[in-house]
Amino acid sequence: MKGVSIPEAPFFYLPNQSVSMSKELVDYLSSFLLDNRLELFKKNLSLRTRYITVVLEDIFQSQNASAVIRSCDCFGIQDLHIIENDNKFSEYERVTRGASQWVDFHYYNQQQNNTLDAIQKLRQQGYRIVATSPHDSDIDLHHFDLLQGKAAFIFGNEKRGISDVVKQNADCFMKIPMYGFTESLNISVSVAIVAHYLSAQLRLLPVNWQLTDEESTAVMLDWLKKTLKRSDLLLKKFQTQKVS
Amino acid sequence: MKGVSIPEAPFFYLPNQSVSMSKELVDYLSSFLLDNRLELFKKNLSLRTRYITVVLEDIFQSQNASAVIRSCDCFGIQDLHIIENDNKFSEYERVTRGASQWVDFHYYNQQQNNTLDAIQKLRQQGYRIVATSPHDSDIDLHHFDLLQGKAAFIFGNEKRGISDVVKQNADCFMKIPMYGFTESLNISVSVAIVAHYLSAQLRLLPVNWQLTDEESTAVMLDWLKKTLKRSDLLLKKFQTQKVS
Repeated sequence: MKGVSIPEAPFFYLPNQSVSMSKELVDYLSSFLLDNRLELFKKNLSLRTRYITVVLEDIFQSQNASAVIRSCDCFGIQDLHIIENDNKFSEYERVTRGASQWVDFHYYNQQQNNTLDAIQKLRQQGYRIVATSPHDSDIDLHHFDLLQGKAAFIFGNEKRGISDVVKQNADCFMKIPMYGFTESLNISVSVAIVAHYLSAQLRLLPVNWQLTDEESTAVMLDWLKKTLKRSDLLLKKFQTQKVS
Repeated sequence: MKGVSIPEAPFFYLPNQSVSMSKELVDYLSSFLLDNRLELFKKNLSLRTRYITVVLEDIFQSQNASAVIRSCDCFGIQDLHIIENDNKFSEYERVTRGASQWVDFHYYNQQQNNTLDAIQKLRQQGYRIVATSPHDSDIDLHHFDLLQGKAAFIFGNEKRGISDVVKQNADCFMKIPMYGFTESLNISVSVAIVAHYLSAQLRLLPVNWQLTDEESTAVMLDWLKKTLKRSDLLLKKFQTQKVS
């Protein structure tokens, strides 16, 4: 394709598309995926959840960022919320083509108080705000009741833990039961333990933990766009076919 | 104490001491500990286990070493087995006064085949050898049967995973159930998930997971020696009292 200039497709290629239109597009793009790959996409999609979500407040170590993204993907947690107050989430992770392409990132970095902004937005979406902390916690992980509804688990900064804003606004505090001398675990380890434990439990409960049809279509579309080589060209071709 | 030369007490100060003698020594040293600290020691000791144990094969990243030690302490796993073939376990962790002082380290680095040496010694101690691997595993973590007896979980190198020697000699293969695109988790995250999940389950089962009286005494003695300031002097004083 040397010498051919192809305009970069915008990320939101079809902003006003209807759900059925998106489904058509998903079917179209899926046809370019190998069968076993498509099966994997469908299987993983069916196990994805937004019932529980992970919120990182101001973490700064890139290896933690990387490990948290992997845990979210591994345990089917679709959304990762990133509050950036004093620290930027590792830029490296934003561009790497590892686990990060399978997880949706939501950044909070435009406000005076990004933590409060995140809490308010998550609460509007129906989430209980759960502060994770080894200190002064009223619930332990093994007794956390997922039947009570959607929950957003906030994990604090590597040095300071959760901020006072989280402490003042959380609906409850949760800790991982520990019985050693060490009083806290590494942030990426904490996220992994909570994500593993609750996501496994969630899938056994009589609650609607799966993505809705609409959400599934949007996530699948995003995965396909990121996976298929020259998906911009394919999108353009699809759009041309629809118009003609 | 300036100008006073005190000989360094050897680690095994009383090599042929009887259990009752050790208990006396534990009582003696315990009297120098603050009450709330002593309570914490006793509580943690009562929750310590050797029923499950962690084996690291040739890991080389110091942050993994550090996180694994913390996980073992946090979840009451007393023994950490370290196989050093091509890589040395982080020296830094051997000397830091963090979680590492509460866990017993067992090194395998003197043989031609240290992995085989570790497996043989662990088997002699009654452990089933469980290779952890995301590939070709026959049991998943949630279905691992702790009632079948003591188990040693081997975690492989960051790059290569478990070695062929482990694959050829393991009694079974276990994986952490995952349902994302990422096929493996960070080593420290894997250890933490397994340690958290199985140690919590273990304590609910009708098996003898606690340390024996003799083991408890030895561990307590070790903790006291490492914790008390100038424990060498206290040990000397105790020995003098016993002789006189």
